[in-house]
Amino acid sequence: METYLDCVPCFVRQAVDSARRTTDDPTVHEKLLREVLRVASTMDMREPPPAMGQRIHRLLRELSGQPDPYRRVKDEFNQLACELLDEYRSRIRQSAHPLEAAARLAIAGNLIDLGVKSHLGQLDVREALEQSLSAPFDAEMDEFARAIASSKSILYLADNAGEIVLDRLLVEQLPLAKTTLAVRGAPVINDATLVDAEAAGLTELVTVIDNGSDAPGTILSDCSEDFQQRFARADLVIAKGQGNYETLSGVEKDIFFALKAKCPVIAQDLGCRLGEMVLQRSNSMASRHRQSA
Amino acid sequence: METYLDCVPCFVRQAVDSARRTTDDPTVHEKLLREVLRVASTMDMREPPPAMGQRIHRLLRELSGQPDPYRRVKDEFNQLACELLDEYRSRIRQSAHPLEAAARLAIAGNLIDLGVKSHLGQLDVREALEQSLSAPFDAEMDEFARAIASSKSILYLADNAGEIVLDRLLVEQLPLAKTTLAVRGAPVINDATLVDAEAAGLTELVTVIDNGSDAPGTILSDCSEDFQQRFARADLVIAKGQGNYETLSGVEKDIFFALKAKCPVIAQDLGCRLGEMVLQRSNSMASRHRQSA
Repeated sequence: METYLDCVPCFVRQAVDSARRTTDDPTVHEKLLREVLRVASTMDMREPPPAMGQRIHRLLRELSGQPDPYRRVKDEFNQLACELLDEYRSRIRQSAHPLEAAARLAIAGNLIDLGVKSHLGQLDVREALEQSLSAPFDAEMDEFARAIASSKSILYLADNAGEIVLDRLLVEQLPLAKTTLAVRGAPVINDATLVDAEAAGLTELVTVIDNGSDAPGTILSDCSEDFQQRFARADLVIAKGQGNYETLSGVEKDIFFALKAKCPVIAQDLGCRLGEMVLQRSNSMASRHRQSA
Repeated sequence: METYLDCVPCFVRQAVDSARRTTDDPTVHEKLLREVLRVASTMDMREPPPAMGQRIHRLLRELSGQPDPYRRVKDEFNQLACELLDEYRSRIRQSAHPLEAAARLAIAGNLIDLGVKSHLGQLDVREALEQSLSAPFDAEMDEFARAIASSKSILYLADNAGEIVLDRLLVEQLPLAKTTLAVRGAPVINDATLVDAEAAGLTELVTVIDNGSDAPGTILSDCSEDFQQRFARADLVIAKGQGNYETLSGVEKDIFFALKAKCPVIAQDLGCRLGEMVLQRSNSMASRHRQSA
């Protein structure tokens, strides 16, 4: 997905928010803001929005001298989600459609996103999980189940810390031996890295790799050679969250995008309502499957 | 008032909105956005926000080739407000406190502000006027009445088209021979110019002047010599709207600011709640009066 004009005021707002969250030093806030404005004034709008997010958060880490400003918040979100894990795992067991219930809960976890919303407590997360079980769900569940069953190699792209703990519920529904989970290669906002996959217990469950990039999404050309090869070899990709959608929606690959459409630009791009939970097969594959059906 | 960091994402958003409202040409939208980002990256944050608004809308008029992009919208808002004028004039006559009722209605007219909100119909305006008559009102009415009674020369600074029609209700409560009304010197957003003062019938009622500037506020150093002299000579200034507050809040002068606090930054600066109607004497004068009391 390209960067829309409407993304730009949002970049600027997020830069100010992130700077304040990272340091109390007003000179850093102003420096980051000015630098983001300068960089944005000549940005390539054909790049996906996370390319700009990557630049903003590199600058913030540089200016603040903090290599991982969101570490504490990520730990909190992981713990918060871990406390809910057993309860919702039994809800899935009781469900008539465990795969769908797990997908709903994993997607609801996508609300734990500091790039979009700043303040969240356990009550918000529990409420979101409860609502997700009965909320409208724009999902191609049968196709999703068939794709899982017929795949030899599944690559699951995680999104945020906290959320990654709930991803475990969905990963547990997949053939574990065939599944690899990938996280970001370095800290950016509250996106999940290896530490978070460990906190979620995922490293004991499936192969976990990092993608070698510090973009808040999956910009393939910026990822490690190893990740690119694994991506190419996977016959099914499950991509969580807006950042992965923004960076992979134009890629020719069998991808199921699993996310909550939290911003109006993405909702429009997806063709869904704002706030809706979506499990959508990538366009290229959806049209190919329709043609062969 | 200086420019806060939070004003900057708002500038960027308003630039995109204004460009779209002015032309369908996407190259103009993108050019304006990039230029606004470039200019903002080196802006002087000690200047009030309307200094940036002035730059943005000069650029927009230049890039679009339209000298007055909001003329049609301004005419619509004037007409809409004119249709309500007689009805609310009789409400004021029936009121136990005509000056307060008139101030409330004139301030309610301040919601007709495209810089802040994009879409408005007659129902919205009527609803706002009705609500204003009983809404909380952070007003120093007695001080205001005394200041009017004791002034030899009153300068009323209008804000937007449409709103200026409702300003007439308040102007009618003032000593007309002593009152001068000032509008912007050239089109900027939907701010009122001489055409709008005429549409409101104000030119038949009081002396009307323009301030010689195309800033969406009153940047004294940018105003004409004539306006600056009249401003200096006036012993009471009534300043409508956010733009006039932002540009005059630091000026040593007896000013009553009459506005709806439509943005969180201004609400904080004023010390009132977001959305509240305010009639507040300038700090310098308020403290002087308190000291002499």
